[in-house]
Amino acid sequence: MTTTDPVYNLQALIRCPSVTPAEGGALSALEAMLVPLGFKVDRVLATDANTPDIENLYARIGSEGPHLMFAGHTDVVPVGDEAAWTHPPFAAKIANGELFGRGAVDMKGGIACFVAALARHIDRHGPPKGSVSLLITGDEEGPAVNGTIKLLKWAAAKDESWDACLVGEPTNPDALGDMIKIGRRGSLSGKITVHGVQGHAAYPHLADNPVRGILQLAEALMHPPFDHGTDDFQPSNMEVTTIDVGNPAVNIIPARATASFNIRFNDTWTADSLKTEIAGRLERSAAKGTLRPGRNPVRFELAWAERPSHVFLTRNDALIQSLSGAVEAVTGRTPKLSTTGGTSDARFIKDYCPVVEFGLVGQTMHMVDERVSVADLETLTRIYETFIERWFGHALT
Amino acid sequence: MTTTDPVYNLQALIRCPSVTPAEGGALSALEAMLVPLGFKVDRVLATDANTPDIENLYARIGSEGPHLMFAGHTDVVPVGDEAAWTHPPFAAKIANGELFGRGAVDMKGGIACFVAALARHIDRHGPPKGSVSLLITGDEEGPAVNGTIKLLKWAAAKDESWDACLVGEPTNPDALGDMIKIGRRGSLSGKITVHGVQGHAAYPHLADNPVRGILQLAEALMHPPFDHGTDDFQPSNMEVTTIDVGNPAVNIIPARATASFNIRFNDTWTADSLKTEIAGRLERSAAKGTLRPGRNPVRFELAWAERPSHVFLTRNDALIQSLSGAVEAVTGRTPKLSTTGGTSDARFIKDYCPVVEFGLVGQTMHMVDERVSVADLETLTRIYETFIERWFGHALT
Ligand SMILES: [Zn+2]
Ligand SMILES: [Zn+2]
Repeated sequence: MTTTDPVYNLQALIRCPSVTPAEGGALSALEAMLVPLGFKVDRVLATDANTPDIENLYARIGSEGPHLMFAGHTDVVPVGDEAAWTHPPFAAKIANGELFGRGAVDMKGGIACFVAALARHIDRHGPPKGSVSLLITGDEEGPAVNGTIKLLKWAAAKDESWDACLVGEPTNPDALGDMIKIGRRGSLSGKITVHGVQGHAAYPHLADNPVRGILQLAEALMHPPFDHGTDDFQPSNMEVTTIDVGNPAVNIIPARATASFNIRFNDTWTADSLKTEIAGRLERSAAKGTLRPGRNPVRFELAWAERPSHVFLTRNDALIQSLSGAVEAVTGRTPKLSTTGGTSDARFIKDYCPVVEFGLVGQTMHMVDERVSVADLETLTRIYETFIERWFGHALT
Repeated sequence: MTTTDPVYNLQALIRCPSVTPAEGGALSALEAMLVPLGFKVDRVLATDANTPDIENLYARIGSEGPHLMFAGHTDVVPVGDEAAWTHPPFAAKIANGELFGRGAVDMKGGIACFVAALARHIDRHGPPKGSVSLLITGDEEGPAVNGTIKLLKWAAAKDESWDACLVGEPTNPDALGDMIKIGRRGSLSGKITVHGVQGHAAYPHLADNPVRGILQLAEALMHPPFDHGTDDFQPSNMEVTTIDVGNPAVNIIPARATASFNIRFNDTWTADSLKTEIAGRLERSAAKGTLRPGRNPVRFELAWAERPSHVFLTRNDALIQSLSGAVEAVTGRTPKLSTTGGTSDARFIKDYCPVVEFGLVGQTMHMVDERVSVADLETLTRIYETFIERWFGHALT
């Protein structure tokens, strides 16, 4: 069966131009791989008023537990400057041992390897002793409104439940085997608006410069540090990502100043406890007033961005050890168990079952000439196959 | 002679729509008042590559010293929302004892009163015992490139020199007699650009957020205070007038941040010593690096705005006492000798002779329904006439 070859699988997927929100044939290509293996495949269209309609896919083989989920996405980011690519971004050309194409590592490559690993497992041992599902969205690189979060709800409404999940996103900074993600920091964003009183720079006592207020509130956001990290996480990190006044006249004191911020937070906090802390810092600082003598308290508004990303940490030893052991067995390297980096769809999955992430090397993701070494595709397939065996072995004992 | 009536003079001037850079007939109207009084009038066109051509006027009566200059401008700011005016802005309508029109107080009113004062003086005593000049520009409210500064150079090149100058700008906050300006703070502006390294908010160690740097440099601009004021001046005042990053993406650490500032400075400083102090503050703060651990020094550029306004202070007792005494004699009030407020063309004149400023009540200047009380026009005319008598009396003894 050709689906045992991850290169074959990946070439088929890359040749489908599935830039979010387009399906581009990628889910159909995946369905064509899974049905012959014995999967029951559902295509799930998700819609909402404000974002594009999205096609998603849920496939399951087996009907009993234990139940392992593999999660990922077939949508890809835009190609950028197409003329700058060495080989066309949807041609899946192999050159010097590397397979070029948009999505090669993020993350059609991960899907291609998992399908190959399953095909090999079924070739060798027959269907899994339990169930395996693929939960694949077309909306991970986009607004993520009609993607994993809705597909999970759709499946749960059909009484699907899972014992563990592996997300196939690229997790390795430099070489295959570097890093497994066992958690992710949360992410929370907000915007502050400070209201002053416009006036002439020669008559500052008749005005109230909101730049003073925004400087003071930005300072309160950044100091002191929110925490010093935990056993599993690096310290929470606050970045003020923009400050804007837009006053072109150097003689004029402006009326308004705004600042936006983003904090990546660890398991010291929940999104709610962090909102309380941040609002408290701003209110205490504002109440003090600026250093300007006789100034009143800073008048400000705080608006939270929608849908914070919640922090999560997986403590499921069977899952982590199955994956870590598979990486060691195949590569001879001990992967770091990390919680660094950005958010992923694992933040939604963790509400349903323990979840870890392991995939290819991420270096070229989202870049021109995104590519993966053919050798890595074979290695990852063997890691995934070993993981499947070990996880079912653990789960069944 | 009707030019003894400041109301008549002011109506003639207001009816000329001389919004900068338009002459609008205003200098011709003034010339028509001055020639019958015995003035020799020069019309001086000033041009340059980047700003509109401007008409200016220089008029002198007498050929001997002592030589008193009256300085001002016939150009006016735009009318704003014309429909919002109670009476049309160029109609010079009198209603309820007030004369309405753009320029009524800033500063066609001052010119109208000075001409009336001179006409009365000549009626009573004949030509002044010495010389009186009017140095009137059409470019005070505009870029001020082709105005007073060029007219002074033009006159000096013809060997004109002066013993004292009265600028007729509105100086009284609430009532005629409140305040004489005997100096003005300087004004210096600059712009800071901080260079960082763009990156993803989840990977701050790979980026360098320039917002941290701009916050730190803005803080260094504002604290500690530059001085605590002098006998004659209030403390120098720094305002950061804008901070801009323009980063719309809350997940992205931006590459660049800018801030502009304006400082109104007293006679503790020269523009040059202040530039040295500010550059030093920024360099010392930048060298420390931001509070972020392991961060390098802040990379920044500092650009100065062209043509700072220099500070000045007049210490000429004869001039100040003649004016102050005239105000007291006519109004019964002792004017405050002040150095507050914005810059004026007196900053150019002070390089040629001692200069003070006194005019109408400034409350409605630059506003819709700019207007002056007819009673104030008569009072200011009597103050100016008394000042002329006293100043020549001082100067000749
Ligand atoms: Zn991805
Ligand atoms: Zn003026």
